[in-house]
Amino acid sequence: MTAPAEAARRPLPTGFVDDLRLLFGDRLQLGDAVRLQHGSSETHFSPVLPDAVVFAHSTEEVVALVKLCTAAKVPIIPYGAGTSIEGNTTPVGGGVTVDLSEMNAIVEVNVEDLDCTVQAGVRREQLNEYLRDCGLFFPIDPGANATIGGMASTRASGTNAVRYGTMRDAILRLRVVTPDGRDIWTSRRARKSAAGYDLTRLMIGSEGTLGIITEVTLRLHGIPEEILSAVCSFETLAGAVETVVQAIQLGVPLARVEILDDVQMKAVNRWAKLDYPELTTLFFEFHGSKRYVQEQVEAVGELARSNGGGAFRWSNLPEERSKLWRARHEAYYAAVGLRAGAVGWPTDVCVPISRLAQCINETKKDLEDASIPAPILGHVGDGNFHVIFVIDPDRPEEAAEAERLNGRLIERALAMDGTCTGEHGIGLGKQDWLLAELGQSVSVMRCIKQALDPLNLFNPGKIFPFEGPVI
Amino acid sequence: MTAPAEAARRPLPTGFVDDLRLLFGDRLQLGDAVRLQHGSSETHFSPVLPDAVVFAHSTEEVVALVKLCTAAKVPIIPYGAGTSIEGNTTPVGGGVTVDLSEMNAIVEVNVEDLDCTVQAGVRREQLNEYLRDCGLFFPIDPGANATIGGMASTRASGTNAVRYGTMRDAILRLRVVTPDGRDIWTSRRARKSAAGYDLTRLMIGSEGTLGIITEVTLRLHGIPEEILSAVCSFETLAGAVETVVQAIQLGVPLARVEILDDVQMKAVNRWAKLDYPELTTLFFEFHGSKRYVQEQVEAVGELARSNGGGAFRWSNLPEERSKLWRARHEAYYAAVGLRAGAVGWPTDVCVPISRLAQCINETKKDLEDASIPAPILGHVGDGNFHVIFVIDPDRPEEAAEAERLNGRLIERALAMDGTCTGEHGIGLGKQDWLLAELGQSVSVMRCIKQALDPLNLFNPGKIFPFEGPVI
Repeated sequence: MTAPAEAARRPLPTGFVDDLRLLFGDRLQLGDAVRLQHGSSETHFSPVLPDAVVFAHSTEEVVALVKLCTAAKVPIIPYGAGTSIEGNTTPVGGGVTVDLSEMNAIVEVNVEDLDCTVQAGVRREQLNEYLRDCGLFFPIDPGANATIGGMASTRASGTNAVRYGTMRDAILRLRVVTPDGRDIWTSRRARKSAAGYDLTRLMIGSEGTLGIITEVTLRLHGIPEEILSAVCSFETLAGAVETVVQAIQLGVPLARVEILDDVQMKAVNRWAKLDYPELTTLFFEFHGSKRYVQEQVEAVGELARSNGGGAFRWSNLPEERSKLWRARHEAYYAAVGLRAGAVGWPTDVCVPISRLAQCINETKKDLEDASIPAPILGHVGDGNFHVIFVIDPDRPEEAAEAERLNGRLIERALAMDGTCTGEHGIGLGKQDWLLAELGQSVSVMRCIKQALDPLNLFNPGKIFPFEGPVI
Repeated sequence: MTAPAEAARRPLPTGFVDDLRLLFGDRLQLGDAVRLQHGSSETHFSPVLPDAVVFAHSTEEVVALVKLCTAAKVPIIPYGAGTSIEGNTTPVGGGVTVDLSEMNAIVEVNVEDLDCTVQAGVRREQLNEYLRDCGLFFPIDPGANATIGGMASTRASGTNAVRYGTMRDAILRLRVVTPDGRDIWTSRRARKSAAGYDLTRLMIGSEGTLGIITEVTLRLHGIPEEILSAVCSFETLAGAVETVVQAIQLGVPLARVEILDDVQMKAVNRWAKLDYPELTTLFFEFHGSKRYVQEQVEAVGELARSNGGGAFRWSNLPEERSKLWRARHEAYYAAVGLRAGAVGWPTDVCVPISRLAQCINETKKDLEDASIPAPILGHVGDGNFHVIFVIDPDRPEEAAEAERLNGRLIERALAMDGTCTGEHGIGLGKQDWLLAELGQSVSVMRCIKQALDPLNLFNPGKIFPFEGPVI
């Protein structure tokens, strides 16, 4: 992926940096290292440097920044942990990146209401550590130790979504700074509401193009009495997927169910010195009372057996569970580790679960002749899976090959009534695919973008092509 | 509630009715009876007649109608079953009401994917009857046998929301005709997606002001092996609410839990000739395997006992369950039946569950001196409850009293971080309260309305005050 033409950048107006310094003091950073960090993603996108980086400490500061940027017509890009798999935070039009990671206060926890309010920069693991003593947890786990604000912006989900939903479901309300400098709450703290348009859900997944999220109220869950993990290998991919489909139809509330293909299992064994069978493998987690978990395990065990599954390795002890899940948690690094000096080029589709086995099988067939390794893993309960192309960054033909294989994968998913992204977002990487997927709906999205951000200053060039700010 | 000034109405342009007739033939209705039916709600709002009513049979017809109305600048109001508790379908600016109730085809059911696609006019009970043979059900139950399109438009929920969520959660995607005459699907059929703005959720709850919903893809659930209902009276309201709070914290997946206060229980006994204790009462439903339901019942039984609950009356047989739930299902008619010739003036707030007992108790105290009966019932698991003011329609001072009591109720709920409507919507009745609740967020909503419907022809005067179409 080459960076968009730098020609589109305008130099910052005279005096603008001085104004920024007045606001942020030494929390304004202009050095190359910090700008490079904030212009990069964890995947294959080429870095583009923002003109400046500021570290915000309050919503009021974000409001002041937005007013300053609006007056000077300078783009503004919110930034959390910077995972940014689709280049979601790459500042293609330059401007100011506002890093929210220092806004990391847990504002309040309402144990009786099973909710909490946090600043956008709070990280997932930090939150769960804090909540442990209350007997509560926040279930969404996209893998990376992302910020809550970043997860909201990309509508993240991950391994627990099959039971607990995605960020769309996990969020009760947002505090957002809009492009016209308003500081709004999108909703009250009640569990449900029919009061006007659902601005909460409009902002979730809008990747910073409609507003900057500064606080989030989250739904929480009681830590289950029993958590049991299990791993099971299957003779065929279809058998693994069918086991999950049948379990869901039976109403078994699987807390996690992840699929890793044979290529990914090989990578994992090599990376973490494990000895799993190098076959399609399901990783399960069951939550509930001891009795109910036992009932779930029995039901799923029976389904697995009848679908060609092998023996279950299982554990309910925290340390053993971590060991069991290690193969899944390190899958991305294991994949990238297949080649020295390689980078990961991960992609993400989601199809109706009835089409999942077919979609993965056809994809594996398409990958057979590829010159680059391409393990597959996914959140099988949602119909969502990833291919990680492992490319040599110095060989542009490999990126081109990944791009072609990715295109065929997405066409396949769309033909099955699926989506070009289950959880990574559109960012820079999937704008054409968004059009292919939703057609005229994209015009409605652009109409909303135009209405709320007429100057096109909020993370311009994401979701929709970069056209430069309106000047 | 008096109807807005009819002065705001413009006569239909010359030739417009002829154009409508060309499109709809004898499915165009101009008679007073049909117009009155479509201008009325099931509650206390005065009727306002639309200029014409058409019965659409396809999305293509709705597109043609929208183009015709846009060219002639005539308002257009979608209509399903017409429950319209907050006057959501009252055509305050005149225009054409498009009745979608004859678009009642079940388009497809995907058993493996646990989803189905239906036309907007399909009714909830019709759908569940159809699904029974597949072993599936659609859980959202707002009481009325509403259309799926209407339920989507008001973001309805009801008795099962505590376990299965609201229409926000139940819908995978919508087919929508936009004010500029586009026929769009808001999303693909995959379970989750991070592809662009969440137009599905933006349309859900927008009450026909942003688009006309013509088809809906719904998530379904497997019919549980065991369904068990139970009724339990409590010495105190706090004890009843505390039982539910503790059950939710324990992770008991209550499928339904409804609260009826002493006044409502009196009404119900009288209406349906039942003999329940006239105390605060909880109606429960448990779903799951036989063993798991047993475990849930034991857990909740213990909590109820420790919170001053009496004996459980319970049943798992369909007929007995219906009998048990009769008191809840007929609550609205029982309430209105407290006075001969009366009408119901129902209202709806939702607060964080930790504040629910206090909110209901303070409301009951406020109602003590009221001259009109005002039973309370609600979806206690969500923190959502209703007061049904039972007024004499010929005594305007009673409507005024209901309005005052309602105002104090909403102020109380807002002060507890609650919302002015958990599930009825804003319609005509709660526009000022929406502003009180969300302040500047409402400007963002209006900005979206203005962008998508610049002529203000889609259900004008709902959610926001009537200002007439742009001419």
